[in-house]
Amino acid sequence: MMLINHTANYAPKRTEVIQNTEKVLYSYMKEILIFGAGRSSRVLISNLHGQSIHFNWKIKVVDIQFDEVDRLDGVVYSVVNVQDETERDREVQNSDLVISMLPARFHHLVAQSCVKYSRNLLTASYETPELKAFEEEVNQKGLFFLNECGLDPGLDHMSAMKLIDQIKDAGHEMYCFESFTGGLVAPESDNNPWNYKFSWNPRNVVLAGQGGPAKFIQNGKIKYIPYHRLFRRTELIDLGEFGMFEGYANRDSLKYLGKYSLQGIPTIYRGTLRRPGFSRAWNVFVQLGATDDSYYIEDTEKMTYRDFINSFLPYHPTDSVELKLYHYMNIPQDSEIIYKLKWLGIFSDTPIGLKRATPAQVLEKILKEKWQLKAGDKDMIVMWHKFEYRDSNTKTKRFKTSSLVVTGENSKQTAMALTVGLPLAVAAKLVLNGKLDLKGMYIPNIREIYDPILAELEKYGIVFHEKEEVAETFTH
Amino acid sequence: MMLINHTANYAPKRTEVIQNTEKVLYSYMKEILIFGAGRSSRVLISNLHGQSIHFNWKIKVVDIQFDEVDRLDGVVYSVVNVQDETERDREVQNSDLVISMLPARFHHLVAQSCVKYSRNLLTASYETPELKAFEEEVNQKGLFFLNECGLDPGLDHMSAMKLIDQIKDAGHEMYCFESFTGGLVAPESDNNPWNYKFSWNPRNVVLAGQGGPAKFIQNGKIKYIPYHRLFRRTELIDLGEFGMFEGYANRDSLKYLGKYSLQGIPTIYRGTLRRPGFSRAWNVFVQLGATDDSYYIEDTEKMTYRDFINSFLPYHPTDSVELKLYHYMNIPQDSEIIYKLKWLGIFSDTPIGLKRATPAQVLEKILKEKWQLKAGDKDMIVMWHKFEYRDSNTKTKRFKTSSLVVTGENSKQTAMALTVGLPLAVAAKLVLNGKLDLKGMYIPNIREIYDPILAELEKYGIVFHEKEEVAETFTH
Repeated sequence: MMLINHTANYAPKRTEVIQNTEKVLYSYMKEILIFGAGRSSRVLISNLHGQSIHFNWKIKVVDIQFDEVDRLDGVVYSVVNVQDETERDREVQNSDLVISMLPARFHHLVAQSCVKYSRNLLTASYETPELKAFEEEVNQKGLFFLNECGLDPGLDHMSAMKLIDQIKDAGHEMYCFESFTGGLVAPESDNNPWNYKFSWNPRNVVLAGQGGPAKFIQNGKIKYIPYHRLFRRTELIDLGEFGMFEGYANRDSLKYLGKYSLQGIPTIYRGTLRRPGFSRAWNVFVQLGATDDSYYIEDTEKMTYRDFINSFLPYHPTDSVELKLYHYMNIPQDSEIIYKLKWLGIFSDTPIGLKRATPAQVLEKILKEKWQLKAGDKDMIVMWHKFEYRDSNTKTKRFKTSSLVVTGENSKQTAMALTVGLPLAVAAKLVLNGKLDLKGMYIPNIREIYDPILAELEKYGIVFHEKEEVAETFTH
Repeated sequence: MMLINHTANYAPKRTEVIQNTEKVLYSYMKEILIFGAGRSSRVLISNLHGQSIHFNWKIKVVDIQFDEVDRLDGVVYSVVNVQDETERDREVQNSDLVISMLPARFHHLVAQSCVKYSRNLLTASYETPELKAFEEEVNQKGLFFLNECGLDPGLDHMSAMKLIDQIKDAGHEMYCFESFTGGLVAPESDNNPWNYKFSWNPRNVVLAGQGGPAKFIQNGKIKYIPYHRLFRRTELIDLGEFGMFEGYANRDSLKYLGKYSLQGIPTIYRGTLRRPGFSRAWNVFVQLGATDDSYYIEDTEKMTYRDFINSFLPYHPTDSVELKLYHYMNIPQDSEIIYKLKWLGIFSDTPIGLKRATPAQVLEKILKEKWQLKAGDKDMIVMWHKFEYRDSNTKTKRFKTSSLVVTGENSKQTAMALTVGLPLAVAAKLVLNGKLDLKGMYIPNIREIYDPILAELEKYGIVFHEKEEVAETFTH
């Protein structure tokens, strides 16, 4: 387990001298404007705040409301509606660097103002076609837009590209790239049969895998897995001291051929990590149709959890809901799945208590109570890459692995918030201090970006462990 | 099996005298304007044409092209783009009655012109919200719009409502309504292991069941079946002399509570009929993801049928595609399913021959060759309703059934085309002859509409057989 230093006022000792010099160079106060004050912004804001006096930064956070926000002294919080162009423009114009932590659908509005007033922009979200549309203007005006600079996307790009570039630079031929990431609960806080708790938006967990088949390439063949099969096609992954995991295919791995310059590679697979047994049990909800978010169930306000499950099962005059479910899903009576399902209380007569709800919303309600990260609970981020290649000198088959495990402090300072927020905070610092001086629209898949960010992140204990071994045979 | 008279120039003998009187009453020539010259219009056009001299009708057919249309002498065919308001308005204005056989998305355009020039409109398509939006204007202008007047929707409404009204009029309490319809191949032309051939748009068959869960009510409980489970939750239905069938749930049965005034009924279920064993084998394609129409497969132009199937299966270094499929789907080596799949040629090295295709499009290509209705092949329509009720006098449990079986002539004069086209043709005749004189927007679920149409259809051999029995117990 890594040790993480992420107290709010942390400023690394060994760079103190250089930073003092920088302080002179940047003697006027610079404003970092952060759109979005939600949970995922917490670490970003406190980290930048902790360095703000040192670097003479003003931190301004804007959002439409600040209901559940712990305000920090010295940080300016201001109500701004991002959809109001005048308000948004004014804020962007007054800033020196913009970071958007808003839901992805709002980024293009922020980008619009940044282009208008020639401000650099950082996000932790996917570089959508909507954002990509600004590329020409970004280039023309000599701006720097960096997207996908969080955990996943973000740290995955940086850590993977570091080794891919190493392997390619040495002239080796890559055969296989596999990459898995999971947001899980730390072993010390793991006290439920699913070995899982929510460390990010529960809704996204319920809907995970929907919206198109999973796509990947295995030994030169493109493979498609439809959603209703996704959680039955898992791989077992042994991460030694961190234990066993299972991975299911994560959306479209083919997109990473371009992102990582791996065109023609015989095997590319990105996956999501869970503890073994999770997917098999989760599959019950998928098979029932209980994760569907496309229609409303009738009369949910009159229904119980048990009624909810029963609505997906065939009618039977005498069999219980439990028995019908086990039969329908082919679950043996002594299966671990049954324990997991019962522990969630899905067979109970608890009222749903929602008025107009989709199956996914009802399921989210049930899970939220059970998978909640309690105040003292620690979450855990696990990222693991595997790179198989033929050594250009010895002609032997070799592989490298790169792994990261980060444990959170508690339910607020989560590993998730740290690994999403710190890469952005580090990028912001590098940009403002002139250490990341690029023009154009990027994701952190080039060494000019990932090298300084990864180096800086090591100071916070975000360290990838890289290993190299001779492969017995190629996997698969 | 019913005997069907549907020759083009058929005019029933026993109404000759009345019709001659009518001829005097309607001495000027009336124009019936038909939008759409596709396959499904064939019977409609030829039937109306056959009576046109007798009734002094002019039949005008308009469409954007007439490539594969067998033109009839005396019928006027004219190229009209329905999306061109001027052209469309001109045609509607010159007509006395409008029938739209266009794809459903164009009906609202036709409706717009009909409202503008106060013309009555008939369609065989669902009364969508887009069409419903014209209701107020239709009422204000005293027009008659009749939708859902084909087979399904159409004959299903008429035949079901006839018995529902009978049962309600007698004061009985309905407990259960079940209704099944299938477009199948007639036994004499059935020479494939799926016992199925295409008698309508193959694309719709491939996509059947997609777009939301099936919904129905069983013993007071609303049930939802997700698409990936639909073909595993079938019912066996014994139709005596016509043999055994299986039914799977057909979309949203809850909509029929309102359409048939059955609010509060404990059981309502609408289903689609296939021959036994079809659904279990079809389920293999659903499970693979081979019916997905939401994304394009990469490089289909370089792939074979076998590659297509393999793209949904896990990689294995030695196992064959066949073996992987049987294992993945849990199909025993001696299953009927294997024969059905092999007969389709899905494991063959036949090139797909499509450039940019979704899984559903590839599957449609494979099936089209195999399930084609050959020139002399006869198709068959089967419709079956079951009505359970408590007799208000004897307090016994009783049930009625109503069934229709129609066999086509050949691959052009299909039972499908007859049962879609004749209800509309009959409705058109009744409207023009003043026998269907209503104002407003309707579907044929009221006796003023279904009585005269069903009576007239009997002359063409479209006869529902109604039976009444005492039920042992209530089903389910």
